[in-house]
Amino acid sequence: LKVHTLEEIELAATPNRVFEAVRAALIAHAEARTQVPPPTHLLFPQCDGDAHVKAGYIVGAPTFTVKVATGFYSNHKLGLPSNHGLYVVASSQTGEVLAILDDYGWLTAWRTAAAAALATDVLSRPGPLTLAIIGTGLQARLAAEWHRLLRPLRRVIIAGRRPEAVASFARVPGVETAPTIADALAVADAVVTATASTKPLFAAAAVRPGTHITAVGADLPGKQELPVDLLTTAVLIADDLEQTLDHGDLAQGMRAGFIDPTVVRLLGQVLRDGFERPSDAITVADLTGVGAVDAAVAETVALKLGCH
Amino acid sequence: LKVHTLEEIELAATPNRVFEAVRAALIAHAEARTQVPPPTHLLFPQCDGDAHVKAGYIVGAPTFTVKVATGFYSNHKLGLPSNHGLYVVASSQTGEVLAILDDYGWLTAWRTAAAAALATDVLSRPGPLTLAIIGTGLQARLAAEWHRLLRPLRRVIIAGRRPEAVASFARVPGVETAPTIADALAVADAVVTATASTKPLFAAAAVRPGTHITAVGADLPGKQELPVDLLTTAVLIADDLEQTLDHGDLAQGMRAGFIDPTVVRLLGQVLRDGFERPSDAITVADLTGVGAVDAAVAETVALKLGCH
Repeated sequence: LKVHTLEEIELAATPNRVFEAVRAALIAHAEARTQVPPPTHLLFPQCDGDAHVKAGYIVGAPTFTVKVATGFYSNHKLGLPSNHGLYVVASSQTGEVLAILDDYGWLTAWRTAAAAALATDVLSRPGPLTLAIIGTGLQARLAAEWHRLLRPLRRVIIAGRRPEAVASFARVPGVETAPTIADALAVADAVVTATASTKPLFAAAAVRPGTHITAVGADLPGKQELPVDLLTTAVLIADDLEQTLDHGDLAQGMRAGFIDPTVVRLLGQVLRDGFERPSDAITVADLTGVGAVDAAVAETVALKLGCH
Repeated sequence: LKVHTLEEIELAATPNRVFEAVRAALIAHAEARTQVPPPTHLLFPQCDGDAHVKAGYIVGAPTFTVKVATGFYSNHKLGLPSNHGLYVVASSQTGEVLAILDDYGWLTAWRTAAAAALATDVLSRPGPLTLAIIGTGLQARLAAEWHRLLRPLRRVIIAGRRPEAVASFARVPGVETAPTIADALAVADAVVTATASTKPLFAAAAVRPGTHITAVGADLPGKQELPVDLLTTAVLIADDLEQTLDHGDLAQGMRAGFIDPTVVRLLGQVLRDGFERPSDAITVADLTGVGAVDAAVAETVALKLGCH
C-alpha cells in the first residue's frame, strides 16, 4: 500500500491535470455517469470539530475514491492547521486499495478553485475580466491564481466583511483591495464569493447587469452568501442539484418556493455544450463540491504517481 | 502517516483485546454514546463488486475511524481474495489521521466472530455447549475458534446448504459435520448462522426449546437466514435496532408487522445487565455489525501499535 506525501501530490497535481479532471468529472456528473452517495458526517463539539467522508466513482473509471476530511477549528490554539484529510484510491475492478493520498485537504482546495475558475470562464462575458473576490481565506487566495490560469484578468479586487483581513492582501502582487464589497461589485465583470457567511454579503442592487457570480462558500446547511432576490432574477447554474437544494446558496430560495429547481442548469452541461450569455443578464454558479470531482482529481494524481 | 501491515495488526489484535473492545462498544452503543452514520455504498456491477464505507465514533474516545471494505466476488478468477479494505484511524481531538490499518478486512472478520461469541455466551443456557454452526465460509470457521475462547464446547457441528462445502470440514480438529441442518439443530444448545442465504435455512419446528441462535449472515437487504414464525415466538436481541429493521433477519418480520420492534433488546444492554434466560425459550441474537464496534477494535489496535 503506497502512501503519497503532500510533496509528491503537489508535483503530480499540475493545474492542467486538475482542470482536465474537474471538467471531465463535472460533465460526467451532469450526464448521470457518476455514483456519489450522500456524504457522511461525524461531529466533535467538544473540540469544535467535524469529519466528512465522501465516496465518489465515475462509472467506467479504473478507480473509485473515499475522501476523509476533517476540520477542527480550535487547532490553531495547538499550533496545528484546522484541516486534515486524505484520499483512499481503490481499484474499481478488484476493490484493492491502490494508494493513499495524504494531501492534508489540498486536493479539495485545488479542485474547488479549479471548478470555480471553470464556471467563471464559461459563464462570464468574453474577454479580459475585472474579477472581484469576496472573502479573505484560502479559497479567496486560490481564486486569484486559478482564474488567471484560464482567463486574462484586467484587475483582481479583494473585498470582505473584515477590513483587517482584507488589508492583509495589500501587498499581494497583482491584487487590489476595495474598502467595501459594494465598491468591488461596482467595477466587477465577474465575482467569486468564498466566505463562510450565513447571511447575504451584499444587496441585489449592488450587482451590475452583465455580472457573473461564482459562489463557493455555502458548504453546510445554514450558510448563505447571496441575496434571495438576486437569485430569483439571475440565470442559475449548479454543480449538483440535490446538494444545492440541501445546503447551497439556492437552498433557501428553492425551499421557500421562490426558485424553480427545473430552471437550474448543471455546470457540466454548460461546460460540455457552451453557454450563450444574455448580454445584460446576471448569472450565478452555485458550487457545493461533487464527490465525483474528488474521485477524478485523486485518480489523476494517483495514476500519475504510479499506483498501478 | 503510519501504515500498519496485516502482520502487525495480527500481533496487536489479540482475542482478549478484541473481546474487550467489542463488548465495551456494544454497551456504549446501547447507551447511545456512539455516532454511527448510515454506511455509504458504491456498486460495481460490471465486476460483481461493491464497496462499503462506515464511519464510527464512541463519544469521548481518543479516535474515530472510517472503514473502507470492498467485496469483488469474481476476484477468484484473477487469483485474488474477494475482500479488501482498510481502516483510517484519526484523532477525535485534532482531526489528524493517526494511522492506516491495512487489514484486508480481517478486523471486521474478527469483530464479527467476537460479537457472535459474546452474544452466544451471554444468551445461551449455562455450562458446556453443543454448538451448531450453519455455514461453511470464513465466519463459520471463526465461530468455532472464537466461541471456544469464551465457553467450553462439548461438540461443534458444522452443517450447511452445500454438502461438498460441509465435507471440507471433515478433517478440521475438534469439529464434526452433520448430514443436514436439521440433524445439527436436533442436538444443539446454541446455533450460529453465518450464510449469505436469502431464504430461511430451516423450519421453526426444527429448533429445540431452550436453544439460542446467533445470526450473523444478513448484512444486506434481501438476505434472510431464519424463518419468520420462529422470530415471532423467540426472545429477540439485536446489536442495532435501525440496522436490523433495514437489513437484518428481523427486517422482514418487523416490516410485515409480525414483530414489534419495542420488544427487541439491545445486545449491549444484555452484556451490561446480564440475561435471565427463560428455561424453555428460544432466543435469537440478530447481528448486523455496528460501526462503533469497528471504531473500538481499530482504536485498540492502533493504540497498541503506537499511533500516538
